[in-house]
Amino acid sequence: MGQPNGEFELIARLRERLPGTGARLLVGSGDDAAVAVAGGATATSVDAVVDGVHFRLDGGFEPEDVGAKALATALSDLAAMGAEPGEAYVVLGVPPAAGEAELLRIADGLAEVATATGTAVAGGDVVRSPVLWLALTVVGHAPRPELLVTRAGAEAGDVLVLSGELGGAAAGLLLLERPALADVVAAATAANLRQRQLRPTPRLRAGAALAAAGARAMIDLSDGLAADAGHVAARSGVALAIDAAAIPLAKGVAELAAASGQDPLELAVSGGEDYELLAAIPPDRLGEAATRIGDAAETSLTVIGEVTRGGAVEIRLPGGGTLTSAGFDQLAPRPGGPAAAGP
Amino acid sequence: MGQPNGEFELIARLRERLPGTGARLLVGSGDDAAVAVAGGATATSVDAVVDGVHFRLDGGFEPEDVGAKALATALSDLAAMGAEPGEAYVVLGVPPAAGEAELLRIADGLAEVATATGTAVAGGDVVRSPVLWLALTVVGHAPRPELLVTRAGAEAGDVLVLSGELGGAAAGLLLLERPALADVVAAATAANLRQRQLRPTPRLRAGAALAAAGARAMIDLSDGLAADAGHVAARSGVALAIDAAAIPLAKGVAELAAASGQDPLELAVSGGEDYELLAAIPPDRLGEAATRIGDAAETSLTVIGEVTRGGAVEIRLPGGGTLTSAGFDQLAPRPGGPAAAGP
Repeated sequence: MGQPNGEFELIARLRERLPGTGARLLVGSGDDAAVAVAGGATATSVDAVVDGVHFRLDGGFEPEDVGAKALATALSDLAAMGAEPGEAYVVLGVPPAAGEAELLRIADGLAEVATATGTAVAGGDVVRSPVLWLALTVVGHAPRPELLVTRAGAEAGDVLVLSGELGGAAAGLLLLERPALADVVAAATAANLRQRQLRPTPRLRAGAALAAAGARAMIDLSDGLAADAGHVAARSGVALAIDAAAIPLAKGVAELAAASGQDPLELAVSGGEDYELLAAIPPDRLGEAATRIGDAAETSLTVIGEVTRGGAVEIRLPGGGTLTSAGFDQLAPRPGGPAAAGP
Repeated sequence: MGQPNGEFELIARLRERLPGTGARLLVGSGDDAAVAVAGGATATSVDAVVDGVHFRLDGGFEPEDVGAKALATALSDLAAMGAEPGEAYVVLGVPPAAGEAELLRIADGLAEVATATGTAVAGGDVVRSPVLWLALTVVGHAPRPELLVTRAGAEAGDVLVLSGELGGAAAGLLLLERPALADVVAAATAANLRQRQLRPTPRLRAGAALAAAGARAMIDLSDGLAADAGHVAARSGVALAIDAAAIPLAKGVAELAAASGQDPLELAVSGGEDYELLAAIPPDRLGEAATRIGDAAETSLTVIGEVTRGGAVEIRLPGGGTLTSAGFDQLAPRPGGPAAAGP
């Protein structure tokens, strides 16, 4: 990529702020390509976020949040494979009006998540663009390919487990867009929910624990439980039966749903962006998974359903009815409207 | 990344057109991450192009050219490492007004280069964006890290070799922007020069041949010989002395430079986007390099200078003067103006 000299200098300043070394990385940023020692198998995922589409700098997101969330959500895909995070590559599309201070703050947010997760920023590029965007590639490692967990291995008889709690990111978005709603929950609860939207945690330790315990299929919940469970069902060729009453809601979700006239289950099942993990695991491995997750001390683990024969997702409601995976229309506007739909 | 259903369908149609399998690829597009068997060492590079900045669909670029050039120029970085191309990951930023036919034609261009080079498109994403852009990550492989050639290993006494000819891409851009200039060269020559701008060839076989022959440093010429030689000098801590008279010009460059009132050497040295390789190689390995390049039958190899002690790039002019690496201002507009500056 050609850059005018000014961009070379910007790249140098961005690089200074980013952790550029890693155990597997022999040559990092600054050559034609980064050189890494491969550890048997790699898991690679790409993601991108665009200003005005996936985030709004005028809608509660600070530049640090944009960088942190972009990397965290990319790493969430590695968590869902059970991979150990290795390297990240960042391309920044930069509009003429973007100030350098803002770009460096985005880098600071990236650096925070990179450091916390042991990820080396091994390369990147800066290109001119009419709109601000970030594209991230993350590479994770495993000693052998069969240790990585795809979406495709679920089998009838497996139990479905969920890390953490749902609905928090959607409730946080509600709070960012309608700050007056915060009155219905404690200030600390509101702050936690906003953080769930602005700063999701990639469940890397939980993913590694589930993979090590023998999870047969795994996915991270970016689009929402209903949609993402549908991906596992389709790729594995199975049906998933989920007990709605078993889904743990993040604290404050019920109150915010009531105050905004929404069903809390819809926030939990279709709100998206919680970046928790859904895994199918043989029942006899559940004890080991719970122990490993407990040892990792990152999050909780809840059994929310089971894998059966068939090909659909059925969410069993407390009142006795069911939602199928088509129960919530994915094209319907998110709580924050289409422009706020999450990455 | 979350996509509305319409984008899932678009992604499915894009995927159908792209070669999605590769020798190292166990899990391709459609899971949380692609899974590849690593072969000892990986070389990874990212690149991006933005409509109106790096190409113009109304300026001679067909959608197929955009896809083909984006992948070819990304792969050029792998060529400059001597890496074997493996996987590519593509993120497409798609404006509301983009027609599906146009996007599929971009994919066709990508597929053409992927197929020709044995590259698997192992993953990607489509995101909404106010402007069309592509971000590409390419991963190459080598059995051992030390077989990959960085910019940093040149030593005083090495000779500098260049693949192919220079100035063609800049002359091609001139022809796209001022079609009337085509009168000064034969129609076939003009067509070749336009192709040098629209469809550069990543010198993968030449790069592999130079690496196998013992090249100590290598770079691909995206910004132009003067600027890119400067990167090698800086990273290797050496000086490069280049004989301007030895630089092979692409056919028609001299005539087009004369007709447009420019110095043909400037087109060759600062025009950029030729994507030829510059390598530093010990003199006693030159014979083997020439034989291997000849066997690969991809391009020619020319000695254009030598590595000396110091830290600058000196381009010795036929008349006796010299240009230093600062001789052509990198911030000066390219022949086609800033908006046409190449990737």
